[in-house]
Parts: sequence; C-alpha cells; structure tokens
Amino acid sequence: MVSSASSAGWDEPLLHGGDLAEARRLFPDAPEPFIDLSTGINPNPYPLSRLPVGVFARLPDADTLAALTAIAAQVYGAPSSAHVVAAPGTQILLPLVATLAPPGQAAVLTPSYGEFSRAAALAGHSITSVHDLAAIRAARLVFLANPNNPDGRLFSRNDLISLAENLRAHHGLLVVDEAFMDVAPAGASLAADVSAGNIVVLRSFGKFFGLAGLRLGFALAAPEMAARLTTMLGPWAVSGPAIVIGAKALADAAWIKKARRRLEDSAGKLDAILTKSGLNIVVGTNLFRLVRTDAASELFHHLGCAGILVRRFPEHANWLRFGLPANEKAWRRLQIALAAFQRSG
Amino acid sequence: MVSSASSAGWDEPLLHGGDLAEARRLFPDAPEPFIDLSTGINPNPYPLSRLPVGVFARLPDADTLAALTAIAAQVYGAPSSAHVVAAPGTQILLPLVATLAPPGQAAVLTPSYGEFSRAAALAGHSITSVHDLAAIRAARLVFLANPNNPDGRLFSRNDLISLAENLRAHHGLLVVDEAFMDVAPAGASLAADVSAGNIVVLRSFGKFFGLAGLRLGFALAAPEMAARLTTMLGPWAVSGPAIVIGAKALADAAWIKKARRRLEDSAGKLDAILTKSGLNIVVGTNLFRLVRTDAASELFHHLGCAGILVRRFPEHANWLRFGLPANEKAWRRLQIALAAFQRSG
Repeated sequence: MVSSASSAGWDEPLLHGGDLAEARRLFPDAPEPFIDLSTGINPNPYPLSRLPVGVFARLPDADTLAALTAIAAQVYGAPSSAHVVAAPGTQILLPLVATLAPPGQAAVLTPSYGEFSRAAALAGHSITSVHDLAAIRAARLVFLANPNNPDGRLFSRNDLISLAENLRAHHGLLVVDEAFMDVAPAGASLAADVSAGNIVVLRSFGKFFGLAGLRLGFALAAPEMAARLTTMLGPWAVSGPAIVIGAKALADAAWIKKARRRLEDSAGKLDAILTKSGLNIVVGTNLFRLVRTDAASELFHHLGCAGILVRRFPEHANWLRFGLPANEKAWRRLQIALAAFQRSG
Repeated sequence: MVSSASSAGWDEPLLHGGDLAEARRLFPDAPEPFIDLSTGINPNPYPLSRLPVGVFARLPDADTLAALTAIAAQVYGAPSSAHVVAAPGTQILLPLVATLAPPGQAAVLTPSYGEFSRAAALAGHSITSVHDLAAIRAARLVFLANPNNPDGRLFSRNDLISLAENLRAHHGLLVVDEAFMDVAPAGASLAADVSAGNIVVLRSFGKFFGLAGLRLGFALAAPEMAARLTTMLGPWAVSGPAIVIGAKALADAAWIKKARRRLEDSAGKLDAILTKSGLNIVVGTNLFRLVRTDAASELFHHLGCAGILVRRFPEHANWLRFGLPANEKAWRRLQIALAAFQRSG
C-alpha cells in the first residue's frame, strides 16, 4: 500500500501548493493581499496578448497542435515532434504514463513529488520508496524528478542513462519528471535520450512560464509510446488557449533567456534573506528554495498570520518550501516577517 | 476487436469534425473564409469578457472549482455537487469512465459517436454493437448518446432507467453521453438519476455554449464513483479559464434561454433549406441535422469546393451531417451552393 499523506495525523489541508482560499480559512486575520509562496511557479508570467475568439470557440485543429509539438521538441531537445505528446498538464499524464509498464514493482525516489506514488498505485503497481539510484534494482517502473522537488537534488544524465540501461534488461521503464529542468544547468535533461525506448520525460509548461492555470504539459517518449499516450488522451486533450499561448511562449527565446536570468537573481536574493534570518540549511532550484529548521511549524504559522503562504510537508515536519515573491512589495513583506520571527525566537 | 474507421478503405482523413486545416488541403481552391458546418457546436458562442491574468497564471483553487461544480449540478439537475466531476472535456473522461466497470462485454449503441468503442476497448472491454435497447442483455458496460449523434434519436428517461435496473442485476454500468441534451426536450436527462449508482451521465460544456476550444465537460455520477473519477483525473485537471468562463456561462439563465430559442430557429431554417434543395430525409438535434442521400459523396465534394465543410461518415456512405451556419453570409453561401448542386443533379 501507498502511505497517503492524509492518513498521517495531518489534520490541516494544504497538501499541495497554491490553495489561497484554504490559506485564508487557516489565517482569517492575515493582511491582504495574501502572498502565495507555496508553489514553484514563476511569479512573473509570460505576457499574455489578446486571443481571437476562435481559439476558445473552435475545436483546436491538427495543424495548430502540430506547431506546438514541433516547437516543444526543439526547445526541450526531443529528437522530433513524433516524440512529443501535449497534454492538459503533466499531472493528468502521470497515471497514464504509469500504465505504460505492466503492473509490478514501482520504485519511487523519495522524498519527491507526492503524486508519483498515487499515480503508480492507480495503475496497479506496488510502491517501493528508495532514496538513491543505487537502491533501484529490478523495478518495472521508476518515478523520479530531476531536478528533484523539493530538495533540488540533481541527477547526472549519465547516471540516469545507466539506470535506464539496467532497467531495460527487466523491461523496466524510467519516468523522469523534469518539471523544474528549465532552471537547471544545461546538459542534465534526458529529452534527447527518449529514443532509447524505456525513458519517458515529463516537461511542465506552466511553472517556468508562470502560467499554471493554463494547464499545459508534455511527455517526451519514443514514438510508439508517445502514440499510445496520445491515444489514451484522445482527441482535443489540450485547450485552444493552451496551444496558442504555449506555442508562442516556447518560441520566444529572448523571453526565456531573460526569465532564466531573472529567476536566478531572485533565487539568490531569497537565499540571502533566508540566511540573514538565521535559516541556514537551504537547497532547491531557482523556482523554489527548501529550508530545514526545527521551527518550521512555528514559522509556517508566523508567516501565515503575516499573509504569506509557504509550503510545508506532512512527512517532514522540519521542512518549508519558499517560492519566489512576485514584486518589491512582496519581497519587503517577506523580509519584515522573517526578521520579526527571528527577533521573536 | 473494434472495427476502426480508418481500416474501412477510407483513405481521406476528416473522421472527426472541425479540422479546417485538413479541409483546406482537400479543397485547396475553395473560396475563403471556409465555413465549418462539420461540428455540432453552437456557432454563436457565449460572449467572452476579459479574464484577469491570475486565471491563467495561478493554479485553479478549490473554491473556484467548487463554485463551478455547484452551478453545474444545479443547471444539469444532478442531486448535488458531490455528484459532479469537472474535466477538460468529456472526451478525456470516456476511457476513465470505461474503467469504472471491470473488463467484460461492453454494448455500444450504434450508430453513434465513434469514440465510445475506442474508449471501451482501451479499458479492456470487448465490444458488441447493438441497435436498440432491447438488444442489450448482460453487458458490463453500456455506452449510448441521448439524444443520439448523428441521428438525433431520443431515448425516454423511463426506458433508460429500466435498462439501468436490468444492468444492476449483473453489476453493469450505463453511461449516457448527453452532449446534446441542452437542446433536447425537457425531462429526458438522467442527471437526477445518477444516485442509482450504476448510471454515469456525461455533459459537454463546449457544444451548447459554443466554446469547444476551452475544453470543459462533466461526469455526473454517484458520489463514490465521482470521487474515483476525480482521483483518476488528479488535481488541477480543468484550466483556470475553463473554470471561470464555465461557471459564469452556466449561471447565465437568460443567455441559455435565448440560445436555446435561437438554435431552434436555426435548425428549422436549416431544415427548410435542405428540404427545398431536395434533401428530404432529415433528422438530428437543434445543433446539427443529418441528411440521408445517395448523392452524399458528390454533395460533400461540391460543398467542399464551395468552401463549406460538412461531416461525412466512413461507415455510412449516404449520410452527411450539417452544423448551423454562424451568420447571414454563411447561410447565403450554403443556400447558393445547395441550389447549384440541385441544378447540377
């Protein structure tokens, strides 16, 4: 059985990031606007332009979708657009990808994104949690995130390719969720390696481009596997707005470069503020930072009362994940709240 | 095995409606703008207003989604919002709904929407095509559309409830796709009956509201089954724009009433034009009309050359389905093209 987060004596909700309505119920007296640092989403989204009504009204046609998968293949580095499956978010792909391996033992690298175990269990696998690549033996299915969420741990491309080769001997499938790869060092992605046949890479559009509400994500896989995923999704899985905005944003190399630099600066600034506040153990990616502190629970509530929502982890009571503030005002409120917490401690 | 449409010596594509890009390849010399009558989508969409950036940027929160399912329950007539599952289109729900019954014999009422058989086969069922309710015996799963697409055949609520009762004895599940129920006579929907436990109703948002590109659809089911579907979809299955626009449109009773009347008028006008053109055997719903004529293939090509795309059916060579023209200019072009065809015959 999978141990479910909600069974662990965790009575307050907010198991995923981004639920401000829930945050307002927990902290009814917090000052508004609430600052949401509970997700790993770029707080400065790709700029939207006006969309023609037809994008909402008509069924998305095959050519528009083909343009999206072509630019996605190019930007992510997949061998061709036949290796790319577009979906309404990678979330909905997880259980489908899990069915690409016949039910058996699934190894989930933990700690990581909680939905991996849920998706594997839905597809009939039994779950083993492992803590490093070496502990994976004859699994039918391996789920891991690279870079990892929430600790930012980066696996080398060579190590993952070796893992996939070992898995192949047992007809095992390696699924690498590269949701935060857009802000990782170059050369770490397995996108170019999916032709191997037993590697599936997931790429998230909404996090780096700051458009999580749009629901757009991709699976990169060998063409036969990609075709199977496309069949499972059925026609018109991705909305017209997601196709049009996605294709435009992915083609905007200048914005991508600028956003990457800006996120790097912001992550550095966040490190400085956290460290100055006595929070010394900080890891993560340039879209979030993870802090380890024995005062995590107190800090979560202190920030909540100050109208700042960060992410906590039911199974790791001393962890807190911080997303990036969107603007100067938010940076300032975070700085003041952290300073006050340090003084009160 | 399911007989697939593409295996039937059907060399030209356009198996689904709405693919204008493909139509332009088939009819490169047709006058523009191409008029798309190949779908059953309301050509006069619910008016869009400007959406706040946050709707695209943030992950949709639980409260916004709850508001959508609450109004959907009310408008469609489901017992409560716990009986409602929102999804990015009903299309993506079909294979998931098919897994709610253990693999076995699936009866698909034919002719109907081609995706039913595909979805049932994906979930491991073997398919039997049946032509009327009486022919359904101990099926594990029944897929039908009410009113039916493309012939508009309407099943009575009582007959379907009896069918569901018979199925229950063999733990069989009845799935009713009510994609065109918005324009059907009142009292035909099974929405209020899903508490029975072995009935799932699918409702499409995009057809009646003319916003098919948005991707929004619903499953109505008993709460336990609804929860299972929600689990399979995972978090954030529906986009922010779909939630916000969907909730607003469903709550707009005045627009709904007006649209229903307008569609009825348009369908009547289409009947008159078709009949006047010598096409006498016409059935359907107020979102489309189906014509039976031995000249179907010639008429499809004649209309295509005039820049008008209608829907044909690979397994029914004498069928053509006509959607509703959007405006006076489109009505006029259709009228002229049909008159010219009649003269040429």
